[in-house]
Amino acid sequence: MSDSIVISIDAMGGDHGPAVAVPGIALALERLGDRKVRFLLFGDETLINVELAHHPKARAACEVRHTDKVISSDEKAAQALRRGKGSSLWNTVEAVKDGEAQAALSGGNTGGLMAISKLLLRMTGGLDRPAIVASWPTLRGVTAVLDVGANVSSDAAQLVEFAIMGEAFHAAVHGAQRPSVGLLNVGSEEQKGHEEVREAHRILRESGLEMDYRGFVEGDDIAKGTVDVIVTDGFTGNIALKTAEGTARFVRQVMRDTFTSSLQAKIGAAIAAPALRKMRDRLDPSSVNGGPLLGLNGIVVKSHGGADARGYANAICIAADLASSDYAAQIDRNLKQLAAAMPGQDPQDGSGSEPVENVQ
Amino acid sequence: MSDSIVISIDAMGGDHGPAVAVPGIALALERLGDRKVRFLLFGDETLINVELAHHPKARAACEVRHTDKVISSDEKAAQALRRGKGSSLWNTVEAVKDGEAQAALSGGNTGGLMAISKLLLRMTGGLDRPAIVASWPTLRGVTAVLDVGANVSSDAAQLVEFAIMGEAFHAAVHGAQRPSVGLLNVGSEEQKGHEEVREAHRILRESGLEMDYRGFVEGDDIAKGTVDVIVTDGFTGNIALKTAEGTARFVRQVMRDTFTSSLQAKIGAAIAAPALRKMRDRLDPSSVNGGPLLGLNGIVVKSHGGADARGYANAICIAADLASSDYAAQIDRNLKQLAAAMPGQDPQDGSGSEPVENVQ
Repeated sequence: MSDSIVISIDAMGGDHGPAVAVPGIALALERLGDRKVRFLLFGDETLINVELAHHPKARAACEVRHTDKVISSDEKAAQALRRGKGSSLWNTVEAVKDGEAQAALSGGNTGGLMAISKLLLRMTGGLDRPAIVASWPTLRGVTAVLDVGANVSSDAAQLVEFAIMGEAFHAAVHGAQRPSVGLLNVGSEEQKGHEEVREAHRILRESGLEMDYRGFVEGDDIAKGTVDVIVTDGFTGNIALKTAEGTARFVRQVMRDTFTSSLQAKIGAAIAAPALRKMRDRLDPSSVNGGPLLGLNGIVVKSHGGADARGYANAICIAADLASSDYAAQIDRNLKQLAAAMPGQDPQDGSGSEPVENVQ
Repeated sequence: MSDSIVISIDAMGGDHGPAVAVPGIALALERLGDRKVRFLLFGDETLINVELAHHPKARAACEVRHTDKVISSDEKAAQALRRGKGSSLWNTVEAVKDGEAQAALSGGNTGGLMAISKLLLRMTGGLDRPAIVASWPTLRGVTAVLDVGANVSSDAAQLVEFAIMGEAFHAAVHGAQRPSVGLLNVGSEEQKGHEEVREAHRILRESGLEMDYRGFVEGDDIAKGTVDVIVTDGFTGNIALKTAEGTARFVRQVMRDTFTSSLQAKIGAAIAAPALRKMRDRLDPSSVNGGPLLGLNGIVVKSHGGADARGYANAICIAADLASSDYAAQIDRNLKQLAAAMPGQDPQDGSGSEPVENVQ
């Protein structure tokens, strides 16, 4: 497996376990084309092998490692951490720690994934807590939004860290030379918003970080693509992401209703069918699935628990992109810059922090 | 003006002032049909009369009251309160206080509108702070979401108040017999979310309020219409609302691109045109404009600062609906219930509270 990327997969994570993970791998292999990617699958080998039997190409790229234990999606993070050892989720992350895999992917318990990843991989360069980043399709390309659910609240220092992580992620994965960064708020004027966003704004403005920081942005700037990276706390980010998903689904439903509302509409839709198919692909919610946990010494990607095979394949492609990128080097550069810009701030080692509770 | 509804209008509020307010009134009069609605317009009478000259039907239903002073949209609430007396915004709200109008409408400074409304009208029945409610089109009808920007943070007691106000609003305006209520969170399990939402959840569960409270809902439940009323703090609600607006705009743009992408697509679109026009109306963002400030002794509606005439007309119709509803009686019933359910809670008089700062 020397010159190929290896992705470790928590095959039991998510609502559908191997029934989505394996078809997802099969689809991802098609999309990845010539790139050499192999998979380590952790979980119930009987269930996994049943699925692999239907997907011979996926089977050829997979190695199955049996685990009896599974962390359920409703377990608290602390509980997942306590009893998680030897579970499919734990072993998936451990494969990255041990250097067997270059990226880990799970659709399972987010809080558990975060706590276990933090314990096993540790945070990089004194960062405090991981953030989950979503790659949001916009009118201008892709905007990275973080945090979308790793943390239920975030202070100003964390928001600044999110800005650093998000900028490094966008540069490494989406290729922007100098990504622009905005802070999500309820208005663009200086005095708007609560204490935390105003303080983070002040730090980003005044720290002398070499970052193209553009100040406050609002909810509608996400889909506009006003900036490349949008920073927010995990509570707001999670709700914004799901609200957008719900809105897109609503609009698609209205469209379906429209094109079946009369014979004439049906004829028009039939004629426009090729264009409509392309549109459907562009608006496919599975195309945004796959949220990397940023800030760790290692790549961990969260797939939506309810993702289908297309969504899962998308998360795999993001993991592969991240594994082949220079994200780690980029974040390192950013952190050195922050340390130089704010010499008073003492890097924490991050290892002694509390496990995450109450996250989505 | 005895048996007609009178709506006072801050004609200078919003990005376009009378140039949107007056055409908005003209459109609203068409939509309101036989209902007798008259308008008191506050602001620069020269500017207003220029617009009224183009809209004779609107002119017949309007009375202009000149004011020199205007509160700008970037003034802080405290500043607006201090120097607001005699401004178009102030006089618009004062008309409701004085009984000259049954509802006030402004597209101006939200923080100023809120602070001035609270000062002049006071909160009803011991409620603490107003909330702005948005009427969100969903797959099942209309969901009321509050707060969407009156407060930048809200404690558990305020979230409970929002639930009471929202339920009364939905029952009065959208006619649900017993509206279902949900609390916006990052997951539906009991242990999810931050302190404030969990505490509000506990109160709503245990207080014995006669409310159809359904527990936590997530961002995608808004457009699904899972519940009739969704409660959240003003920061999250504002960002969710604008994110949804942005997403809807993004999808419409993708649709436009689709239908102009090829000759074949153009032909299909031309044939489906009548159905597509209906769809466009259903997805028109101006159809959600108009957010009442709930909890005051009087009806005040906020129009989006950037609304066009259609959006403004929509806000006028909401003001008219609310003015003809039994919202005040309904909220009174709910508050008595809350007082009975939680006898320990002492109603505050609300009049001494701080003016609102830093709100959208």
